[in-house]
Amino acid sequence: MIPRYSRPEMVAIWSPETKFRIWYEIEAHACDAQAALGVIPKANAEAVWRAKDVEFDVARIDEIEAVTKHDVIAFLTHLAEHIGSEDARFVHQGMTSSDVLDTTFNIQLVRAADILLADMDRVLAALKNRAFEHKDTVRIGRSHGIHAEPTTMGLTFARFYAEMDRNKARLAAARDEVATGAISGAVGTFANIDPAVEEHVCAQLGLRPEPISTQVIPRDRHAMFFATLGVIASSIENVAIEIRHMQRTEVLEAEEYFSPGQKGSSAMPHKRNPVLTENLTGLARLVRMAVVPAMENVALWHERDISHSSVERGIGPDTTITLDFALNRLAGVIEKLVVYPENMLKNMNKFKGLVMSQRVLLALTQAGVSREDAYRLVQRNAMKVWEQGKDFREELLADAEVTAALSPAEIEEKFDLGYHTKHVDTIFARVFGA
Amino acid sequence: MIPRYSRPEMVAIWSPETKFRIWYEIEAHACDAQAALGVIPKANAEAVWRAKDVEFDVARIDEIEAVTKHDVIAFLTHLAEHIGSEDARFVHQGMTSSDVLDTTFNIQLVRAADILLADMDRVLAALKNRAFEHKDTVRIGRSHGIHAEPTTMGLTFARFYAEMDRNKARLAAARDEVATGAISGAVGTFANIDPAVEEHVCAQLGLRPEPISTQVIPRDRHAMFFATLGVIASSIENVAIEIRHMQRTEVLEAEEYFSPGQKGSSAMPHKRNPVLTENLTGLARLVRMAVVPAMENVALWHERDISHSSVERGIGPDTTITLDFALNRLAGVIEKLVVYPENMLKNMNKFKGLVMSQRVLLALTQAGVSREDAYRLVQRNAMKVWEQGKDFREELLADAEVTAALSPAEIEEKFDLGYHTKHVDTIFARVFGA
Amino acid sequence: MIPRYSRPEMVAIWSPETKFRIWYEIEAHACDAQAALGVIPKANAEAVWRAKDVEFDVARIDEIEAVTKHDVIAFLTHLAEHIGSEDARFVHQGMTSSDVLDTTFNIQLVRAADILLADMDRVLAALKNRAFEHKDTVRIGRSHGIHAEPTTMGLTFARFYAEMDRNKARLAAARDEVATGAISGAVGTFANIDPAVEEHVCAQLGLRPEPISTQVIPRDRHAMFFATLGVIASSIENVAIEIRHMQRTEVLEAEEYFSPGQKGSSAMPHKRNPVLTENLTGLARLVRMAVVPAMENVALWHERDISHSSVERGIGPDTTITLDFALNRLAGVIEKLVVYPENMLKNMNKFKGLVMSQRVLLALTQAGVSREDAYRLVQRNAMKVWEQGKDFREELLADAEVTAALSPAEIEEKFDLGYHTKHVDTIFARVFGA
Amino acid sequence: MIPRYSRPEMVAIWSPETKFRIWYEIEAHACDAQAALGVIPKANAEAVWRAKDVEFDVARIDEIEAVTKHDVIAFLTHLAEHIGSEDARFVHQGMTSSDVLDTTFNIQLVRAADILLADMDRVLAALKNRAFEHKDTVRIGRSHGIHAEPTTMGLTFARFYAEMDRNKARLAAARDEVATGAISGAVGTFANIDPAVEEHVCAQLGLRPEPISTQVIPRDRHAMFFATLGVIASSIENVAIEIRHMQRTEVLEAEEYFSPGQKGSSAMPHKRNPVLTENLTGLARLVRMAVVPAMENVALWHERDISHSSVERGIGPDTTITLDFALNRLAGVIEKLVVYPENMLKNMNKFKGLVMSQRVLLALTQAGVSREDAYRLVQRNAMKVWEQGKDFREELLADAEVTAALSPAEIEEKFDLGYHTKHVDTIFARVFGA
Repeated sequence: MIPRYSRPEMVAIWSPETKFRIWYEIEAHACDAQAALGVIPKANAEAVWRAKDVEFDVARIDEIEAVTKHDVIAFLTHLAEHIGSEDARFVHQGMTSSDVLDTTFNIQLVRAADILLADMDRVLAALKNRAFEHKDTVRIGRSHGIHAEPTTMGLTFARFYAEMDRNKARLAAARDEVATGAISGAVGTFANIDPAVEEHVCAQLGLRPEPISTQVIPRDRHAMFFATLGVIASSIENVAIEIRHMQRTEVLEAEEYFSPGQKGSSAMPHKRNPVLTENLTGLARLVRMAVVPAMENVALWHERDISHSSVERGIGPDTTITLDFALNRLAGVIEKLVVYPENMLKNMNKFKGLVMSQRVLLALTQAGVSREDAYRLVQRNAMKVWEQGKDFREELLADAEVTAALSPAEIEEKFDLGYHTKHVDTIFARVFGA
Repeated sequence: MIPRYSRPEMVAIWSPETKFRIWYEIEAHACDAQAALGVIPKANAEAVWRAKDVEFDVARIDEIEAVTKHDVIAFLTHLAEHIGSEDARFVHQGMTSSDVLDTTFNIQLVRAADILLADMDRVLAALKNRAFEHKDTVRIGRSHGIHAEPTTMGLTFARFYAEMDRNKARLAAARDEVATGAISGAVGTFANIDPAVEEHVCAQLGLRPEPISTQVIPRDRHAMFFATLGVIASSIENVAIEIRHMQRTEVLEAEEYFSPGQKGSSAMPHKRNPVLTENLTGLARLVRMAVVPAMENVALWHERDISHSSVERGIGPDTTITLDFALNRLAGVIEKLVVYPENMLKNMNKFKGLVMSQRVLLALTQAGVSREDAYRLVQRNAMKVWEQGKDFREELLADAEVTAALSPAEIEEKFDLGYHTKHVDTIFARVFGA
Repeated sequence: MIPRYSRPEMVAIWSPETKFRIWYEIEAHACDAQAALGVIPKANAEAVWRAKDVEFDVARIDEIEAVTKHDVIAFLTHLAEHIGSEDARFVHQGMTSSDVLDTTFNIQLVRAADILLADMDRVLAALKNRAFEHKDTVRIGRSHGIHAEPTTMGLTFARFYAEMDRNKARLAAARDEVATGAISGAVGTFANIDPAVEEHVCAQLGLRPEPISTQVIPRDRHAMFFATLGVIASSIENVAIEIRHMQRTEVLEAEEYFSPGQKGSSAMPHKRNPVLTENLTGLARLVRMAVVPAMENVALWHERDISHSSVERGIGPDTTITLDFALNRLAGVIEKLVVYPENMLKNMNKFKGLVMSQRVLLALTQAGVSREDAYRLVQRNAMKVWEQGKDFREELLADAEVTAALSPAEIEEKFDLGYHTKHVDTIFARVFGA
Repeated sequence: MIPRYSRPEMVAIWSPETKFRIWYEIEAHACDAQAALGVIPKANAEAVWRAKDVEFDVARIDEIEAVTKHDVIAFLTHLAEHIGSEDARFVHQGMTSSDVLDTTFNIQLVRAADILLADMDRVLAALKNRAFEHKDTVRIGRSHGIHAEPTTMGLTFARFYAEMDRNKARLAAARDEVATGAISGAVGTFANIDPAVEEHVCAQLGLRPEPISTQVIPRDRHAMFFATLGVIASSIENVAIEIRHMQRTEVLEAEEYFSPGQKGSSAMPHKRNPVLTENLTGLARLVRMAVVPAMENVALWHERDISHSSVERGIGPDTTITLDFALNRLAGVIEKLVVYPENMLKNMNKFKGLVMSQRVLLALTQAGVSREDAYRLVQRNAMKVWEQGKDFREELLADAEVTAALSPAEIEEKFDLGYHTKHVDTIFARVFGA
């Protein structure tokens, strides 16, 4: 975790306090189920709940672990210090450490996913607002970084909305994938514990029982989870790159909000740098790097090896914390993005009228000119704009071969911007609903 | 594509012939829609279908492309050679190359996914068969490569089944994600083509219209697709590693089928190596390596840059072909895997009775011995088995502290294998249905 | 391999013909060494060389392999068809397949590296030429995509030169790393073959004996090799991104060479897209994706497993072929890049004089103004340029607080471009030598 | 950073205190150089050194940064609080933040590399010790997890030594690559600062001047650095996997040291799990995941963008801390590894004499039997051992076709273990020197 790229709500999910709290709840619910089955005395199960309001002492547990070299045993020893070793003696019965650890990890991932889903709602709301705000703000569409045809700023926001909305559905699916728990014993056979315990604990904690586990919950679920976070990060990068391009000195169609007291550079006071979106570009790389190790974690040996554990101690908190921060930073950037519609128009007209060449090409074809000839006619006039700074419309009007096919009025009509925005409402209806 | 790791059916999807065929169908359907809208003459649209049974001449198209340096223009020029340049003149009208290329790519991915889904059905069928065949074949479960408690070979197959079944659902979702088409023009605004064309073409080709595209279909869809293939590959690796472990000389609980004429080694004729599953381990790495570039492809500049194209020319065919081959190889390995139940029993008893230690521990606890004492009692007898090759049951029966808590009959009962398999049916019902 | 991104010279290295030729040479040299040791008859060793000019029949070898399912045995069988089975009987004696396969793979990588090193020489030559050509071509330096201070186009080329030169040194080291051969038998103990054979074969083929091998040559060497290719690819991306930025419509400081007959777009004839550098960006991703699997190949089980083999069948040819193509494409792009010095000046002056703010800031500080005050003074005038299009120099001259510290002449002097280029020769001397 | 996988010495390199200390030294040395050039007053330069023994107040700097939103400005402001704003006024003159940040980052990487090199020395020493200790400890060599021919445990340690020794050379080279500093101003032109300052600062801090920088030091250096760490991690995984295999219940040729008080499992007291090497396997994945983002960092926009920064804030500390921990853990595992030579012999004889089949094959060939016949003869007897548990030597002696070619004495001689170890000294001399 990098403190400057973290938010307390997500950090809290990964604190030792939260972890021990979840361990406790799993053990306590398991005792209830065991008591209901008659495996352990009801009184002992009830006794465990006496620690309900205890804040477990992380330092003390660490101290015990230093001796036992086993974290779950350390926790159980500490728990016994609270409820008495006599009453604690049936806690964890028939369970294996991984029953607790894996179920806990999944609960943490589910909670993390819930925060991320809320984050995405904030991003989506911002994108939607800005999309409608700039639905008709015309700017040039670019392919290969080169002017193509007009589009609108609203469409840009709308496509990022549609992409993030897909990501939300993906994350909801990935959350669902990891919302399982397992209390199935040392190799997943329930030899020493009835499946009813697993069912009870999962029901209490909002999970589904893992249909078949070994000592651990299968890691393909987690691979899919982190792969999904990687895709979301890539979409964040997508928005970030767009904004970084827009803020370039030569383009300046938008700028990240620049607070009055902020200094852009220690050396060049005039600079307003898109540092937030550049930062998001880097954060996307950090999130994405968890994908391959999460996949390498799938092939555990036999009923489990523990190689996945260190990986997850890293990527579990780091990836969710970084992505949570990134989504919130992204939302803020979008909410406050300063858009310059006038610069958009200025840029579009850098090569006077040239972006309308496709329309003219089509009109010539429809007027009976062969595709090859039409292409040649358009290209010859386009090159004069490109190379000599001429005005495309004027050149066309002065080209006898062109005017032989198209009337001046027909040529003029090709330069109407409305032509390019006529389906914006249709697209918005597709994206945001009618 | 590596020829030895490819199957013709999947290779065919990525052939130039298939590609041009799909291009043709997109163009022809688009002409129909344009004619229905009155944008182009019906006769011209109909004329395009005259090429319906033509096998396009790949060499000729390459020849034209060498001049035009543009693949779609080359194809259209060649198409005109078939239907006449007069009739061909409305083909592709209002469309941009990417409308054709991206819709084609998605069709190829959808077809590839359909083959992969069928492959997975074969793997699932094999796993299910072998799971039921070995439902009660007892073997030792292992954590950390160390004997833990008994499980059954059927449970091993069943968990691979459950994992692959999840993968199938993931791939179905990923297939659905890429089952979109776009005919939306140079920057996705439909300026020169009515959305109705896109709707018609997509409907004809089994796709949904992309709600909002730029010049291209957004690449987050493809990132998710390849990420999903990466997860599937990781699950293949998971099965492969299990089998490789089982075939080790010292373990020998199973072997890949070894055909009579096959030579295992040029030097050591006795060797039967798990070369298929080792190969699958490598193929998994090859599939997985597509994930990160697919994610790097998401952040295209503005309405598109073409950096994704070379990546997809590589990973599109290579990854699907490799995964298709791997799934089929995996299915074959599972179908024909030679299982050695007697070796499983022999291995389980390597340390006589030691794998039952957990049961004894529990029994002692339930008989009123404290957790710490029970642990000490079990460990002390276990160590004698481990270090001196003693028999665990006999040691327990001879340990006065143990027999003070448990009767000989109670101790004997702890060594009943049925104890460990009693919930196999429950788990099978969860995995395969009641 | 993607045919359109390949060059025949590199492809040839990976052909079956080349592979069998190398196998043959290894076997023949090994026979010589065995004969010299008296292990096999001299006559038989000499007989092997009778096949010296044979072009081995790949189809025939494949046919044999279909039966034996072992490639080296198939080749040896075919070799016997040429030199007679009696004379062939000592070929491969004491060797294991991997002796041949691994030594061959390293020879192929060495040859591939030699081509890549030559490719890099071409890139370096182009960068050096263009660097000196544009040593004094002033353009604005940009951080965060925002104008910073003037630099020169020559410095841009020079830094790419320095980076590629480092890459060349890295590749030379990586080539050296894989320039080893092993003829050490089934588990690397030389049990059945004298180390002298390995020494002879390696000496003949330009390799060093691998100091300690198992059945295979250790794969950390190859991991380092592919990691190095990944770094080179990232540097290609670095140059490509710079050019793509320069070619943006709004910037247009350079363009990829656009041949007269070339069509930029099927729809927009005016477009000149930086498609080569966009392609290079994608190719960089393809090369880089080999790095992780090459690292995953290091941890082979015991004296070898064959999981690395399929990976290397993919990344061996694909990565070197793609990188070879990319380096040559890059060289061509640099050699023919059309540079627009006048646009560079125009861009630099977009915000009149603003890029000199740092100099003014320093001058104020040196004139005794506190850092904070100087910053405030510069920022206040800079903002007028930024927001109202004013001329920075004029604003400064009109700002009483500024002129209280600096005379008009001192202010004027701050706008001298020579100030920024005065150390270009120093830097060139560092990069290219005095 | 994951606290449980970290060592204080490496953590200290990445503390804010260390960072500010390096910043301070860079600034102070730069002032000296500026004073020597006459750019700033000598008195002011000397004044800066008054803070030589100050421990900078991280909390205070953070407080200032919260206002300025710029870390270097915050530090300089704090420095002024120590030496007085009058004397501090020339600090940082002509420099840009990145001059400080990048030079600092490289110093940190160099220091980290020095620790890692020392770590590797510890690993190398352990491997060498264990190699000589077990030079003649015979064990079976395995390919594909299947018994091949005898080797020795010493050779296993020796090959890990050779591999780690290569890694040390690689890291030394990578350390050298990042041992550069840059004080070259906003876009690397030295416009506002003389190259002599850079030279002085670098000389004082043990760095070379970066020959050509932009605002930043080129990131190909860092990509190479992290790629090298990735290769080292893969070699750690290689050793870890070997040990995990050796500790399997069925193999048990070695065990990680198991301290008396340690509990292997909460449920199965007899278990001794290779948890350290499993952990190392996971840590290797964590280190390796930094490689791709480090490569993605190379292509910064123009003279710099800041996307690399967040990545490096993550992977800079995390990767070096994790690798440092892993190398030390690895050294400990090797130093204390419990080796079981008697189990090695037991395993080797699992299939009686079968591992000698290669020798018999060769002997038959040399006795004039054709390769094909010899193969058939060996295979037929080998299969009896494999399938019926027969003794290979006895079967050969009873096979008339075999004894027709080889005398009983010749057959017996093939089962001499010394045959396989005769070149161990030769190999040791190659690896460790004569």
